[in-house]
Amino acid sequence: MSNKAISYAGPGKVEVVDTEYPEFVLKDGPGVHPANVGRKVDHGVILKTVATNICGSDQHMVRGRTTAPEGLVLGHEITGEVVEVGRDVEFVKVGDLVSVPFNISCGRCRNCIERQTGICLNVNPDRPGSAYGYVDMGGWVGGQAEYVLVPYADWNVLKFPDKDQAMEKILDLAMLSDIFPTGFHGAVGAGVTIGSTVYVAGAGPVGIAAATSAQLLGASVVIVGDLNEDRLAQARAFGCETVDVSKGDPKDQIEQILGTPEVDCGIDAVGFEARGHGKEAATEAPATVLNSLMDITRAGGSLGIPGLYVTGDPGAADKAAQEGSLSMRFGLGFAKSHVFVTGQCPVMKYNRGLMHAILNDKVTIAKNVNATPIALEDAPQGYAEFDSGVAKKFVLDPHGMVRA
Amino acid sequence: MSNKAISYAGPGKVEVVDTEYPEFVLKDGPGVHPANVGRKVDHGVILKTVATNICGSDQHMVRGRTTAPEGLVLGHEITGEVVEVGRDVEFVKVGDLVSVPFNISCGRCRNCIERQTGICLNVNPDRPGSAYGYVDMGGWVGGQAEYVLVPYADWNVLKFPDKDQAMEKILDLAMLSDIFPTGFHGAVGAGVTIGSTVYVAGAGPVGIAAATSAQLLGASVVIVGDLNEDRLAQARAFGCETVDVSKGDPKDQIEQILGTPEVDCGIDAVGFEARGHGKEAATEAPATVLNSLMDITRAGGSLGIPGLYVTGDPGAADKAAQEGSLSMRFGLGFAKSHVFVTGQCPVMKYNRGLMHAILNDKVTIAKNVNATPIALEDAPQGYAEFDSGVAKKFVLDPHGMVRA
Amino acid sequence: MSNKAISYAGPGKVEVVDTEYPEFVLKDGPGVHPANVGRKVDHGVILKTVATNICGSDQHMVRGRTTAPEGLVLGHEITGEVVEVGRDVEFVKVGDLVSVPFNISCGRCRNCIERQTGICLNVNPDRPGSAYGYVDMGGWVGGQAEYVLVPYADWNVLKFPDKDQAMEKILDLAMLSDIFPTGFHGAVGAGVTIGSTVYVAGAGPVGIAAATSAQLLGASVVIVGDLNEDRLAQARAFGCETVDVSKGDPKDQIEQILGTPEVDCGIDAVGFEARGHGKEAATEAPATVLNSLMDITRAGGSLGIPGLYVTGDPGAADKAAQEGSLSMRFGLGFAKSHVFVTGQCPVMKYNRGLMHAILNDKVTIAKNVNATPIALEDAPQGYAEFDSGVAKKFVLDPHGMVRA
Amino acid sequence: MSNKAISYAGPGKVEVVDTEYPEFVLKDGPGVHPANVGRKVDHGVILKTVATNICGSDQHMVRGRTTAPEGLVLGHEITGEVVEVGRDVEFVKVGDLVSVPFNISCGRCRNCIERQTGICLNVNPDRPGSAYGYVDMGGWVGGQAEYVLVPYADWNVLKFPDKDQAMEKILDLAMLSDIFPTGFHGAVGAGVTIGSTVYVAGAGPVGIAAATSAQLLGASVVIVGDLNEDRLAQARAFGCETVDVSKGDPKDQIEQILGTPEVDCGIDAVGFEARGHGKEAATEAPATVLNSLMDITRAGGSLGIPGLYVTGDPGAADKAAQEGSLSMRFGLGFAKSHVFVTGQCPVMKYNRGLMHAILNDKVTIAKNVNATPIALEDAPQGYAEFDSGVAKKFVLDPHGMVRA
Repeated sequence: MSNKAISYAGPGKVEVVDTEYPEFVLKDGPGVHPANVGRKVDHGVILKTVATNICGSDQHMVRGRTTAPEGLVLGHEITGEVVEVGRDVEFVKVGDLVSVPFNISCGRCRNCIERQTGICLNVNPDRPGSAYGYVDMGGWVGGQAEYVLVPYADWNVLKFPDKDQAMEKILDLAMLSDIFPTGFHGAVGAGVTIGSTVYVAGAGPVGIAAATSAQLLGASVVIVGDLNEDRLAQARAFGCETVDVSKGDPKDQIEQILGTPEVDCGIDAVGFEARGHGKEAATEAPATVLNSLMDITRAGGSLGIPGLYVTGDPGAADKAAQEGSLSMRFGLGFAKSHVFVTGQCPVMKYNRGLMHAILNDKVTIAKNVNATPIALEDAPQGYAEFDSGVAKKFVLDPHGMVRA
Repeated sequence: MSNKAISYAGPGKVEVVDTEYPEFVLKDGPGVHPANVGRKVDHGVILKTVATNICGSDQHMVRGRTTAPEGLVLGHEITGEVVEVGRDVEFVKVGDLVSVPFNISCGRCRNCIERQTGICLNVNPDRPGSAYGYVDMGGWVGGQAEYVLVPYADWNVLKFPDKDQAMEKILDLAMLSDIFPTGFHGAVGAGVTIGSTVYVAGAGPVGIAAATSAQLLGASVVIVGDLNEDRLAQARAFGCETVDVSKGDPKDQIEQILGTPEVDCGIDAVGFEARGHGKEAATEAPATVLNSLMDITRAGGSLGIPGLYVTGDPGAADKAAQEGSLSMRFGLGFAKSHVFVTGQCPVMKYNRGLMHAILNDKVTIAKNVNATPIALEDAPQGYAEFDSGVAKKFVLDPHGMVRA
Repeated sequence: MSNKAISYAGPGKVEVVDTEYPEFVLKDGPGVHPANVGRKVDHGVILKTVATNICGSDQHMVRGRTTAPEGLVLGHEITGEVVEVGRDVEFVKVGDLVSVPFNISCGRCRNCIERQTGICLNVNPDRPGSAYGYVDMGGWVGGQAEYVLVPYADWNVLKFPDKDQAMEKILDLAMLSDIFPTGFHGAVGAGVTIGSTVYVAGAGPVGIAAATSAQLLGASVVIVGDLNEDRLAQARAFGCETVDVSKGDPKDQIEQILGTPEVDCGIDAVGFEARGHGKEAATEAPATVLNSLMDITRAGGSLGIPGLYVTGDPGAADKAAQEGSLSMRFGLGFAKSHVFVTGQCPVMKYNRGLMHAILNDKVTIAKNVNATPIALEDAPQGYAEFDSGVAKKFVLDPHGMVRA
Repeated sequence: MSNKAISYAGPGKVEVVDTEYPEFVLKDGPGVHPANVGRKVDHGVILKTVATNICGSDQHMVRGRTTAPEGLVLGHEITGEVVEVGRDVEFVKVGDLVSVPFNISCGRCRNCIERQTGICLNVNPDRPGSAYGYVDMGGWVGGQAEYVLVPYADWNVLKFPDKDQAMEKILDLAMLSDIFPTGFHGAVGAGVTIGSTVYVAGAGPVGIAAATSAQLLGASVVIVGDLNEDRLAQARAFGCETVDVSKGDPKDQIEQILGTPEVDCGIDAVGFEARGHGKEAATEAPATVLNSLMDITRAGGSLGIPGLYVTGDPGAADKAAQEGSLSMRFGLGFAKSHVFVTGQCPVMKYNRGLMHAILNDKVTIAKNVNATPIALEDAPQGYAEFDSGVAKKFVLDPHGMVRA
C-alpha cells in the first residue's frame, strides 16, 4: 500500500516522496536512532491522516540550521482516523477520530506519571522528550503523510467524542496537536489570569495561539509584537492590540496602549531565531526577545517561553549563539523577581480542555491563525510561502477530507 | 540619646559611628532618596536591636562593587525589642520581641496584597522592592545599630509568642530576618519536596540555609558544592553530601554520590560573583553556576535562584557582566523544560512557619550556619573575617543580650 | 450633616432612617460589639456612597432568621467616592472612586498576610471575619446609606484607575464589592477551568455571578438550576443552559443537555435555605443542594460553596437544622474523591482582576444579573421585590449618580 | 502450582485457602464483576508476594459490614518480586522488586492522565476506582497470597532501585502500597506545611502514618487523638503529643498542649466507624470526628480525610447512617472557611518520593506503626488481634522473606 509523504531534501527543500505504509514496528530509516531500530509498537495505532500541519519548528530543519538528514519524513502536528490498532491497544478503536500530541510519550515513566509528557524518558534514546518527524528525537516517522504510526496509543491519542461534530470543526481541532496547547502553555507559564495585561512577542502561529489562549484565560488586554504587518493585522482581527517592533522599542508602544510601559505577563513566541528591534530588526539577535521581555514585564511577573531555544545552532550569527549561549540581562530579571518557564509544551495537560472549548464554540483558533488547508502535494509550496512570512497556518490535507 | 551604628567607609572598610536615635520620620542622610526625605513614619516602631547579622550582600557594597555612598549605615537582618510605637501602630506593643523581614514593604499595595513583599511598590521611589541599609533601596536606615526604625510595623514585624522562650533560641530566630527564608525560598523555587535530590551551589550562609531548608522540606539527599573546604565541612556537619568544585565539574562528583549525574532540584546560592569550576576556579565567571545548574538538574526540574544577580556591576571582569549580561546556555535549560525562579525572597511568606519550626526544635539553623555573636564594636573585624571565607555567620549583638 | 440609611425594623421590614454622619471612630449603636465601641479609625476613609446593593444575605436578617437587632443599618456591598481620609491614611486620596470588599479586614494579621481576608482576626471580637452592617460581625455600620466609614482604607479599598471611565461602567463595578468575586470564588473552588462543564445550583445574583465567572474561566458548558423561571430565563440570556429543579432531579436534565449525567464542577449558590427538588420543591431541605451536587459532580471534581451555611438557624424546619446540622451523604462525596471548598469569599484575591475584565469589556456582569438602580428611599420596596424572587439585583443609588 | 491465600469466610472469619496460581486473565470467582470476567491482562505481571499487609479497610469487610461475598481473597497492600511479565509489558522485568499501589489504575484514561489514579475509569465496571481483593471494586484478586496478578504493570508498579538495599528496609517499603501514602495524602489535604500544628483523629496505622507524614512535611506539633492507650503510646514513641478522647473533648486537651484550642490542620484517620468522645465513647457516632475537626481546626484551615466514609452501611446504628448520611455541622465549617479533602489516596502521586525518603533514612514508618511480620498461615490470628486494637500493623510474609 502506498503512503505519500513529505520529506526534507536538503537546505530550503522539501519534496513529496513515496514511503512505506506503516507497520507496528519502528524500522530503520533516515534519522532513526540505532537503539530504536526494530522497536515493537504493538501498543500503537495506524492513522489515516486527516490533517497534518506545517510548523515553524519544521522550518528550522528545512532552513538547514539543524543536522536533520535528507530523507527525513517531516510532520508532528497530526490529526487522523484510526485504521488499525496494535494487539495491545485496549481502548482506542478503529474508526476513532483523534488528535495526536506532537510529544511522543510512553505513559509509563516517572515523567509521564508526573504529567511531564514533553520529556518522556522512554521514547528517545538520546535524551528526554521526542516528537514525530524531528531531528534527534529518536526517529519516529513524521506525520506529513497519508498514514502514520502512533505509539502508546491508549495513552497518547485524544479521541473526539463525536466524529461528525468534529469534522465540522476539523481545522480548529487540527490545532490541538501542537500550536494551540503550545501557545496556551506559554500563557500559563506567563501566569495569565483574569484581568492580566499580556505581551506576546511574535505573531506567527504560536504567537497567535498564545494570544488566543491569553484571551481565553481572561486577559484584559493582549498586545502582540512582530515585524510583519500581515501577521499583526491577523492579531488585530481577533481583538489584540499590536506593536510593530521594527518601529522601535516595544516598551514605548506598550505605554501608549496601556498608559504604563509594563505588562503583567510576557510570552516569548519567537525563540532563538529572534531579530533585533527598531534599526537592528534585520539582524539576528537571539537574546533580543528575552531581554526585551524582562524589560517590559512588571516586577513579580512571569515569562512563558514556548519559543524554541536550542542547545546548539551551527548556523547562528556568532560563536556564542552557535554553542547555544545567549547574552541575557539576567540581573534585570532577578531585580524584578521574574520566573522563566521554558520547554516543550506537555500537550496532554491541555488538549482535552481546549478540545471542549473548541467544540462548544468558545474559541476560533483556526480563524485566528488563518488555518489554510492544502493538498499534500502542495506542501513544498506551503513551506515556501510560510517561510516568506505569510499570515497563514498551512494544514496538509492528504485525503481531501478537510477541504470537503 | 546615642545610637552607635556600623557604616560603610569606602571600599573594604566599615566603621563604628555615632548616629542619631531614630524618630518617626525618615530624615535626610547618606543614600536617602530625595523623595523619601521627610517621610512620616507614624506606622513605625523603634526597636532596641537584639541581633543584627552581617550578610553576604552587605559585602557587595563593602567591596566597593556598588554605588553605595560612604556613611551609609548598613544592616538589613534585624531582630529586636520594641521600645516605642508610632501613633498609627495598633497591634505591636512596647516590649514585643520581633523579627524584621529584610524587605521593607507597605502592606497596602498590589504586590503586598499578592504576598510579593520583596517588590513592594510604595517604599522605594526608584523601583519595586527595598531593604534597610542598602544602596539604591530608598534610603531606609540600616539596622546594624543599637536602635532602628521599622516602618509599617503592624504589617512587617513577626512577634515571637513568648519572650523568654525566644531568647533561648535567639541565635536561631535571628536567621528569620533574611537568610533562613532566603535559603528556603531557593529550595521552594527549586521544587524541593519529599524525596528530592538537591544540589546547592555555594556553602556560604545562604547556601547552608538552603541546604537546611531542603532537608526540612523532605529532600532525600542534599549535596552542597563550594571551593571552600571549611564551608563544605560545615555542610557535612548536618548531614549534607559535598562537592569540591575546585576539583572539577560537579556533575562527576554528583554521579559518584547518587549513581546518576543529575539532581531533581538545583539551587544557586552564589549569584553574580561566581567563580569558575576546576582549573578556572580562581577567575570570576558570572554565568558558571547557572550554566552548571542547567547541566546537572534533571529535565523537568526547577532552578531556585536566591543568589543575587545585579542589573549592573561596574567592577565585573568583562564588559557584558558590567552591564549585567550573562552568557547563559539557555537552550540547554529549554531542552530540559527548566523553570527559573529568581528574585529577593518575600520573607513574609515563610518566616512564621520557620519560626514555629525553630521554636519546636525541628531545625537548628544557627548551628548549621555557625552563627557567631560578636559585639557591635567588633563589626569591622567580623566583616573582614567573613570576607576571608570563614564558615561563620556573624551576629552583631549591640546590647550584649545574645551573648548573655 | 445628615446621613439617610436603611435599617432593619423587625421581621420583614426595613426602613429609611436618619443616622449620624460617620466620624473616624466606631460609636455605640445597634449590634456594635462592646469591645468595638469607641474604636479609633484613623486608618479609615469616609465615602460618599455611589452604589450599595441589596444582597441575599441581607434578606436572611430581614426575614427574621437571625438575631439581628432592630435599628441595625444594613449594607455590605459598597462603592463610593472618598470624601475624607483619616490621618493615618497614606495612599487613598479624597476624590478617589473605590470599591469596598464586603469583608472588613485589617491588613495586619496572619490571615490577611495569607490573603484570607474573609477571616481577618482583628476586626470582629467574636470570631474571625467581619462585614459591614451584619449581625454578629462586630458592629461596623452598614453602607446602605449616603455616607459610610471604611476602616483600614489603604488596605481595603480598590481604586478605579479612571473616574470617568469607571462611572460609565458603574453598575458593573458595583458588583465587585461582593457578588461577582463571591460567584467567582465559587467557580474557582469548584475547579472550573478551560473546557469544564459546570452546574450552578441557584439562579439568584450569586448563582448568576458564579455562572458568569465560570464562563470567564473558560467553561465549555454552564448549566444553572433553579425553581424560578424568571431567573432561569436570565441565565439563558447570556448563554447558560438551564434546569428547572421543580421538574425533577437535575441529574436527568443534565444528561439531556450533556449526554452524561455528571458535570466536572459543582457550585452551590443556594446555601442553607435550600428547598427540595421535584415534588419536594415547596419544602425547606437544607442539605438538598449539597447532596445533589455530590450526585451530579464527577468523581475527582470539586464543589465550590459560596452559598451561606450558618452555625445556627433558629427559624429552621427541624431541630438538626436549627443547630446548623445537615444530613449529608458524605460517603458519596468520599467515594468520588470530592473536595468541598466553603466560606466567605476573600474578595481581595479577585476584585482587581475582575475590575480589569470589566473595564476592558470582557464581561457584562451588571447585565447578566440585571442590575437595577433605585433610589435609597425605594429600598423597602426593593427588599420586598427581591424577596419575591424577581430576576433583579437592586443597586441603591443614594446620590442619583448611578442613574445619571 | 499452588497459591495459598487469605479469604473472607463470613462475618468475623478469614481463612487460609488454596487458590489457583494467577494467569494473564481475570477469571470468574467470588466478587468478580461479570463485565470483568475473562478480561485479558497481557499488560500485567505476576508477583511473588514478599509482603502483604492487613488493613483496617479489610476489617470493614471481615466484620460483615459490607456485601463482600464469602471466598473473596483479601489484600490490597502488596509488595513483591516480579516472576512473570505479560507480553505487553515493556519496562518491568522479571526479578524486579516492586511496590504496588492499592488503587488499580489503567494509565490510559482521563483520570489517570490527570493523576487521579484513585478513580480510574477503566478498571471497575461499577464506578470509578478499584482495589485488589475488595468488595464492589470489579473483582481483582487480592494479594494476601503467595502470588498475585498486577495489571497495567508498566504504569502501576514502583520499582525499588536496588534489591538488596530494599530488602534491608522491606518492612518500611511495604507501607508504600497504602497506609503511608494514604496518611500522607491526609496530611497534604489538611495543608500541613513547615511549622503547622496538626491534630490527627485516630491512632490506628493510617493515623500513625498521617502523623508521621505531618512530621515529614515539617509540622511543628503533631497531636494524635484516640481512645486506645496502647496506640497513643505508639504515637508518643516517635514524638507526637496525644489526646485521650475518652477523657472528654479533644479541644480542651489541645489547649493544654498548645495554649490555644485550635490547630492549623485537621486529619480524620477514623472514618465512618467513629465513636463518640468522652462519655459517648462507647457508641458509634459516625459524624463525631468530622464535627470535632471543624471545631478544633482554625478558621482558614483544611481537613484531610483519609478515613473511609461509605455510600451505604447496612450495619450502622441508625437509619441515616445506614444510607450513608451523616449529621454534619457544616455551617461551622463554612463559618471557618474550611476546605474538606476526601477520597482514596492516589498512591502514585506520593509513593516514589516517600520511597526515597525511606531509602535515605529520613523516616521510620515501619517502626512508627509497629510493623509486625507474620506467616501467611497466621493471618486469621493477625486479623483477630488487629481487630482487638493492638498497636501493630501486621505484615503477611508468605515466603518468609521479610522475617529472614
